[in-house]
Amino acid sequence: MKVSVPATSANLGPGFDSLGIAITMKNQVIIRPSKFHSVSLKGEGANNPVLKDNNMFISIFNDFYHNLSHKKRHFRFEFFNEIPLSRGLGSSSAVIVSAIASAYAIEGIKLDKNKLLNLALAYENHPDNITPAVMGGFNVATVQDNEVRYINKSIPKALKAVIVVPNRPISTQLSRKTLPFKYSKDDVIFNISHSSLLTAAFMSEDWKMLRTASLDKVHQKYRMKQMPELFDVQKSALRSGALMSTLSGSGSTLFSICFADDAKRIEKALRNRFSHFKVFTSDFDNTGVKIDL
Amino acid sequence: MKVSVPATSANLGPGFDSLGIAITMKNQVIIRPSKFHSVSLKGEGANNPVLKDNNMFISIFNDFYHNLSHKKRHFRFEFFNEIPLSRGLGSSSAVIVSAIASAYAIEGIKLDKNKLLNLALAYENHPDNITPAVMGGFNVATVQDNEVRYINKSIPKALKAVIVVPNRPISTQLSRKTLPFKYSKDDVIFNISHSSLLTAAFMSEDWKMLRTASLDKVHQKYRMKQMPELFDVQKSALRSGALMSTLSGSGSTLFSICFADDAKRIEKALRNRFSHFKVFTSDFDNTGVKIDL
Repeated sequence: MKVSVPATSANLGPGFDSLGIAITMKNQVIIRPSKFHSVSLKGEGANNPVLKDNNMFISIFNDFYHNLSHKKRHFRFEFFNEIPLSRGLGSSSAVIVSAIASAYAIEGIKLDKNKLLNLALAYENHPDNITPAVMGGFNVATVQDNEVRYINKSIPKALKAVIVVPNRPISTQLSRKTLPFKYSKDDVIFNISHSSLLTAAFMSEDWKMLRTASLDKVHQKYRMKQMPELFDVQKSALRSGALMSTLSGSGSTLFSICFADDAKRIEKALRNRFSHFKVFTSDFDNTGVKIDL
Repeated sequence: MKVSVPATSANLGPGFDSLGIAITMKNQVIIRPSKFHSVSLKGEGANNPVLKDNNMFISIFNDFYHNLSHKKRHFRFEFFNEIPLSRGLGSSSAVIVSAIASAYAIEGIKLDKNKLLNLALAYENHPDNITPAVMGGFNVATVQDNEVRYINKSIPKALKAVIVVPNRPISTQLSRKTLPFKYSKDDVIFNISHSSLLTAAFMSEDWKMLRTASLDKVHQKYRMKQMPELFDVQKSALRSGALMSTLSGSGSTLFSICFADDAKRIEKALRNRFSHFKVFTSDFDNTGVKIDL
């Protein structure tokens, strides 16, 4: 059985804790019944001794599996992880979603995507990564009465993401601490209007509106100050023709969206200038979590 | 020549200074060349001696007319105003838009709607009333570099507005003063996510989402405290089946959206309970400013 979950970029521009989008980069696991429990991990995180047993996945998987099944089965878990860790591309959300989906799938219990999403919420209370991880595409999400409420929109092939992954993380915790405790009414209105406009732009495929609509006053500049080079990445991406360029999650990745025809040029410009960072182009994912039995 | 401009409801729920919608209730003016300047006003405001000359309209009209024309012509202005004054239904925006459109039309100069919108911005710096007044429909709007940036969506006939206009205003100025100077991060995120979700709901016609998405923590409760009965109006509207019910502009009108089939029942319930307020049902306007030469 194979489960794959896409990487995601949340906090899209003004859409702090609200807007997220999925790309085709994946976290995959193949699970087979086995005499003994065993884990192998290839790809991102494989060289990290703390992660090599993928305890986060196994722990969440076991939570659900032991509830769903009374059999005492062991499994071999083979992970293939393309999602950089601690860089704001939703690697934790992918693990959470994958573990829950796997526990149900291995028991042959059909799990509605909405239910999966709400189960994942217990492990990750920000809905803007888990929603695109489960659903794919562009998502607006909020939480009400412990349930994710969301609206979802597919992204056409005409768009691509150009992604710059720095060689070091910004701590999510530190990143949250650098944010102000209180916001002025002007900043609040700025982000309400821009996040709404960005949503309307995605919903109506009005791509020319992304540049204006993706501006933010609530979180990006505070976090990017911890790695000032990111301002240069953002400027370079926009100058090279990106439609928008925003901090991914709480960083340190910078996530740009462009017309497919411009992707190679933008990627090349960014790679030339930021050769010490990982720069690549990705398609958008409109599928979300995928289970192959 | 006849110019008509629709009434509008701005600050829609969480969409403070950002989201607005147009209804078919109109401010109309018929303008004819005449030997002398004269004004007549019928409808809302007709009994108010301060308003009977409609100085606001005439002053803005003259600003533009004298710039556009070097002829010394006089006009007879016949106003028919259906829009209640000082109740948060965009009566000022309608006058501004009407006056500018009239000055261009009477000179036979074609005025692009985007240009009209940006001219109106000089008189009304909140874009969420003037954008639907010019464009009709549901609108997300912000201002960048002194220009309104907006996305617009028509509202289908399947929806209607049920509107409760109290017998007294809330002062807009006082209403702004009752708002906090600073907002917590939680409130900011709440409104960013809800305004984005409300936008997505309108764009995708996901009407069942309106109830969740229309919640607000930034302006409504502060303003409605000045007229606590409005909380009862809101609750009654929602209990009677409205899809959403929000303060219109800065009040005092409460603006509910419902399926057309439910409008009569909701209207009746509200009229029975709030007999001292004006209660009526309106269609949505998808045309905006309209000029008949």
